[in-house]
Amino acid sequence: MSDLTKLGAAAKAASRQMAICNTKIKNKALETIASALVNQSQAILQANAHDINRAVESGMTTAMLDRLTLNQARIDGMAKGLLEVAALPDPIGETIDTVLRPNGLSISRRRTPLGVIGIIFEARPNVTVDAAALCLKSGNAVILRGGKEAISSNTALVKIMRGALKEAGLPEDAVCLVEDTSRQSSIDMMGLSGYIDLLIPRGGAGLIRTVVENAKVPVVETGVGNCHIYIDDEANLEMGAQIIFNAKCSRPSVCNAAETLLVARSVAKEFLPLAKKLLDTKQVELRGCSETAAILGKSVVPVTEEDYYKEFLDYILAVKVISGVDEAMDHIAKYASGHSEAIITNNYFTARKFQDQVDAAAVYVNASTRFTDGGEFGLGAEIGISTQKIHARGPLGLRELTSLKFIINGEGQIR
Amino acid sequence: MSDLTKLGAAAKAASRQMAICNTKIKNKALETIASALVNQSQAILQANAHDINRAVESGMTTAMLDRLTLNQARIDGMAKGLLEVAALPDPIGETIDTVLRPNGLSISRRRTPLGVIGIIFEARPNVTVDAAALCLKSGNAVILRGGKEAISSNTALVKIMRGALKEAGLPEDAVCLVEDTSRQSSIDMMGLSGYIDLLIPRGGAGLIRTVVENAKVPVVETGVGNCHIYIDDEANLEMGAQIIFNAKCSRPSVCNAAETLLVARSVAKEFLPLAKKLLDTKQVELRGCSETAAILGKSVVPVTEEDYYKEFLDYILAVKVISGVDEAMDHIAKYASGHSEAIITNNYFTARKFQDQVDAAAVYVNASTRFTDGGEFGLGAEIGISTQKIHARGPLGLRELTSLKFIINGEGQIR
Repeated sequence: MSDLTKLGAAAKAASRQMAICNTKIKNKALETIASALVNQSQAILQANAHDINRAVESGMTTAMLDRLTLNQARIDGMAKGLLEVAALPDPIGETIDTVLRPNGLSISRRRTPLGVIGIIFEARPNVTVDAAALCLKSGNAVILRGGKEAISSNTALVKIMRGALKEAGLPEDAVCLVEDTSRQSSIDMMGLSGYIDLLIPRGGAGLIRTVVENAKVPVVETGVGNCHIYIDDEANLEMGAQIIFNAKCSRPSVCNAAETLLVARSVAKEFLPLAKKLLDTKQVELRGCSETAAILGKSVVPVTEEDYYKEFLDYILAVKVISGVDEAMDHIAKYASGHSEAIITNNYFTARKFQDQVDAAAVYVNASTRFTDGGEFGLGAEIGISTQKIHARGPLGLRELTSLKFIINGEGQIR
Repeated sequence: MSDLTKLGAAAKAASRQMAICNTKIKNKALETIASALVNQSQAILQANAHDINRAVESGMTTAMLDRLTLNQARIDGMAKGLLEVAALPDPIGETIDTVLRPNGLSISRRRTPLGVIGIIFEARPNVTVDAAALCLKSGNAVILRGGKEAISSNTALVKIMRGALKEAGLPEDAVCLVEDTSRQSSIDMMGLSGYIDLLIPRGGAGLIRTVVENAKVPVVETGVGNCHIYIDDEANLEMGAQIIFNAKCSRPSVCNAAETLLVARSVAKEFLPLAKKLLDTKQVELRGCSETAAILGKSVVPVTEEDYYKEFLDYILAVKVISGVDEAMDHIAKYASGHSEAIITNNYFTARKFQDQVDAAAVYVNASTRFTDGGEFGLGAEIGISTQKIHARGPLGLRELTSLKFIINGEGQIR
């Protein structure tokens, strides 16, 4: 048995105990973890300092360094997150679709934990705690596999969480960390059939691609967001300009930020200068089609076919002037990642058509794509945003970390 | 672009049209297909005769030949199946979880088709029509990849279905057939990312394993059923004997048939002879532990560790005498495939414990596992039985061939 298989077996055994654990005990454990993190802040900060030192030596960028850095405020933030998850309703046990069949069998579906959830993620150590909290609250065990940059921080955090679980009377193997951060350990984890019930990659497009290509366990693909805002010929243009500005600039590095602006030809001359005025305040680079350039002038960089596929995650926006809603929907069907798509229009029928026909996790009328988020949607915290269609689409909250089983009660029925 | 990629692109284009198709049109298409199959029975039977001739020459077993053979009654059965699917409620458009957020955004989840569903299956040509019917009714396009043994029949059936789709005003590419039945075409289909939204293997354990190991597209694992009946020490033994006889013998070749009988030690001496009397009427081979042999005598074949993992799909039953419900649950957790598990007991608390703790698609009290079936559960026809935990568990009906998208309506909200 390899070390990873042993870890899988331990997590699986713990998951059986977690599955029968009531809400009160799970909440108590989350609260115990929160206190432990705050009480042991010094140990966490010391471990984090090791990661930071190594990162500085290896020449990590400032943005990456910032994501890796923990401080007291961030530890307090993790603890607060744990208490917020404790306060969410427990999805386990919900019973739906109850029927009494003609033969007297009573059949219903009961919400259960998935079992063991694997999370493969990159540098941010706060993911370690956030992800564990959501998995525990939904009655699952979790196997965490963070990046090598954060291994000291993650080891310290997991040690504290396991201690707190034990203190709360839960199996410490409900939170496991893969300490080997080699590429091979990651590939091995993707093949851990029989132990991992769901694998969620959290990170950049490269990581997600690797997981989807290599995993033999069930995966929910998350994160890549190539989102569009379409300004219809019957749009409120001032509203449209505010929305594209918000969708592009409020946080360009996240997956629900807009990457391409599509503008109906009949309003392009009036709309594009309005939008540019706002986007210029953040020095957004516009990569436009020839019509965009003709309207906005030389500052527009010529857009390429590849740009339309890109998640820039930066102050860069592709811009295309098109004929109307049908071309917008064709463009989205071809280039989008199935994350969040928005139309700005005053026309009831056009709005309805767009929402009926666009195939994405979230389809907006007259609002910013930036709302695609578990908290904003009222689902509570989220573990990622799914861009695939099976299991769950959009923000993955507690309910999306569960399964359903059929419960059948009879009195001797045979078939 | 390979032929398979072209097929994928054609199916994907068709899926966009299918997704906006109303119930009336979809039902009309299913009825048109039903009539076309009956009207063109001769062409189907001729094509099937080619398959049968090849199969006989290659020395196919009688059981396999029977599954491959079509006749007028079976074609009429397919047509009837199509009309039954037409009569089922349309899952598309159902809207759930509607909320009005504090910021005025209205958010709901709307049921949508998955898009393109791939089905890889083995010899039975009726699967071609059954699977297509369920995919079409749920607004999806389907790519079918049957076995080489049935290629002539499948080609004829798909040609007729495509013609009928066209006649009904729907895109004929909503039903596509992979005509290349080489192993490579199957592997290529498992890698058709961007075109296939869900791949469902239907067939034996070997096929399912290959798909799970090789697929880069989302998969729902189906079919392998290593199901258990546990006779508790407080069981009604006569009922238990009837149930194990039914679960083993009513149709041993299907996935919801029982493969292992677990018996509480305190009732084994009384129960096992009762059960054997019934099982002997079908000459069921009993592979038992030493205690079983001590009770039932020399006809019991010694069971091996491997037997406990096996889906015999035959008149063979593993038998183990155990201490009680806890050991039963441990045995099931170790050996079962997560399909259907049953306890026979009069004790309320034991029944409840078993249903709470056993992790399977269907958990029964005092009924035969043979009921795990879309029709028996009241879901209508099924495309398979999922033994994985994400997306859907148990019988896959129309609703399990759908996804949900978030629909968000605002009046200019930004974040």
